Amino acid sequence: MNKLSVIKIGGNVIDNSAKLHQFLLDFTALPGDKILIHGGGKIATELGDSLGVTAKMVDGRRITDIETLRIVTMVYAGLINKNMVAQLQAKGCNAIGLTGADGNIIKAVKRPVKDIDYGFVGDLDASSVSSATLDSLLKAGMVPVLCAITHDGDSQLLNTNADTIASAVAVAMSSSYETSLVYCFEKRGVMLDVDDDTSLVSEIRMHEFDQLKEEGVVSGGMIPKLHNAFEAIKSGVAAVYIGKADELAQIDQQNFGTRLIK
Amino acid sequence: MNKLSVIKIGGNVIDNSAKLHQFLLDFTALPGDKILIHGGGKIATELGDSLGVTAKMVDGRRITDIETLRIVTMVYAGLINKNMVAQLQAKGCNAIGLTGADGNIIKAVKRPVKDIDYGFVGDLDASSVSSATLDSLLKAGMVPVLCAITHDGDSQLLNTNADTIASAVAVAMSSSYETSLVYCFEKRGVMLDVDDDTSLVSEIRMHEFDQLKEEGVVSGGMIPKLHNAFEAIKSGVAAVYIGKADELAQIDQQNFGTRLIK
Repeated sequence: MNKLSVIKIGGNVIDNSAKLHQFLLDFTALPGDKILIHGGGKIATELGDSLGVTAKMVDGRRITDIETLRIVTMVYAGLINKNMVAQLQAKGCNAIGLTGADGNIIKAVKRPVKDIDYGFVGDLDASSVSSATLDSLLKAGMVPVLCAITHDGDSQLLNTNADTIASAVAVAMSSSYETSLVYCFEKRGVMLDVDDDTSLVSEIRMHEFDQLKEEGVVSGGMIPKLHNAFEAIKSGVAAVYIGKADELAQIDQQNFGTRLIK
Repeated sequence: MNKLSVIKIGGNVIDNSAKLHQFLLDFTALPGDKILIHGGGKIATELGDSLGVTAKMVDGRRITDIETLRIVTMVYAGLINKNMVAQLQAKGCNAIGLTGADGNIIKAVKRPVKDIDYGFVGDLDASSVSSATLDSLLKAGMVPVLCAITHDGDSQLLNTNADTIASAVAVAMSSSYETSLVYCFEKRGVMLDVDDDTSLVSEIRMHEFDQLKEEGVVSGGMIPKLHNAFEAIKSGVAAVYIGKADELAQIDQQNFGTRLIK
């Protein structure tokens, strides 16, 4: 099977043009087939503020009302995605920028209203992803760049968590590619000591996860992150990496972040 | 050669949701391979007004400064393009929404500064179009939906005239498809009497164009429109149609607008 890297970057890279430039260079240099998935960043919030659309929160959770959906569609699918594609093209990477609506690549389901109405938010799993369409783009020599917008197949665009998209895409592609899923975030990976940058845990096997939780090495927001990563591995993803965008160039030398394997 | 329709719609359709819905139904029903190209509409102007970015004009010509480029990128490539794609998908058309940066489909040149600096505006011709990439998308069963944003190949997005894109795409695709170029606009086509809707000229051959200009049947803004249409025909496009979006469904019965041929 050919190798495929599914790489997710978040707002901390997108909001910093120097970091983004370096990341896109490193991404372009990665060998093999690849797919980039990006979240939002501060720009959508700033545009909302300029337009007098304030982020609606219910019980601490962000709600995507129709005005917010318009804004994230403009910012994620327009401004961020297209500028990223233009930059990748200039660096020699044949990027093609997409939402889940394009080519029906990701058909999500509007989150059902229970206690909270989250508005126009899409939920999905690997079965929501059209791996055949992504495969045909890869085979045509293109590099899909997906933003965090999907659709419901019935004309409605939906705001969707970029981590979830990355995981679902990686699982769906695992049937035809040896797929690595790479989450770039603020930290170097799982650290034995959060204050010591050299205390990186380079590899965690699935059976070690419970022990690391007990020992408190993995705690807080890292627990659901790693839980989801191991779920992806159970579903066929070869390896999940969690690390710092700045260090992506070292992934080939197995020297990037924390590597999660079976 | 397979047949291909390259269809351009403008703001009058985009700004009217009932019209747009019907147009997208008719577009979906068209047989054969097809490409949709869309312009802007009022939404970009409205967003600019809300953000306090007023359209800059020099000698009556619109200037695309960096703020305006941000707005058209958000509105054309994000809001309009992605909502159109989601609607087409719901109607059974496997649309994929793109700018010229995506897959390097259209590499334009920033308009040189002479008397006027138009800002971030891209000029192009058929050689700017990667017909191989469009062809691979069509062969993969997708329907490209292009907005009026291109790039320069050096990271810069550019605002580009949608009519020009439509013409350049049609000419570029003519080497591998029997291509029709269809401009949808406000009127039924070339009229003998502007006030008489039944006075439609159904067909104009290239050698008749000069005579129609002399007789005043073709005048004003219609002259450059038809001139450009015949240039496309000289460059290999099989036929150019100019007509009303509402009547697109009749194009199969050769009963749509004014048909321009060699």
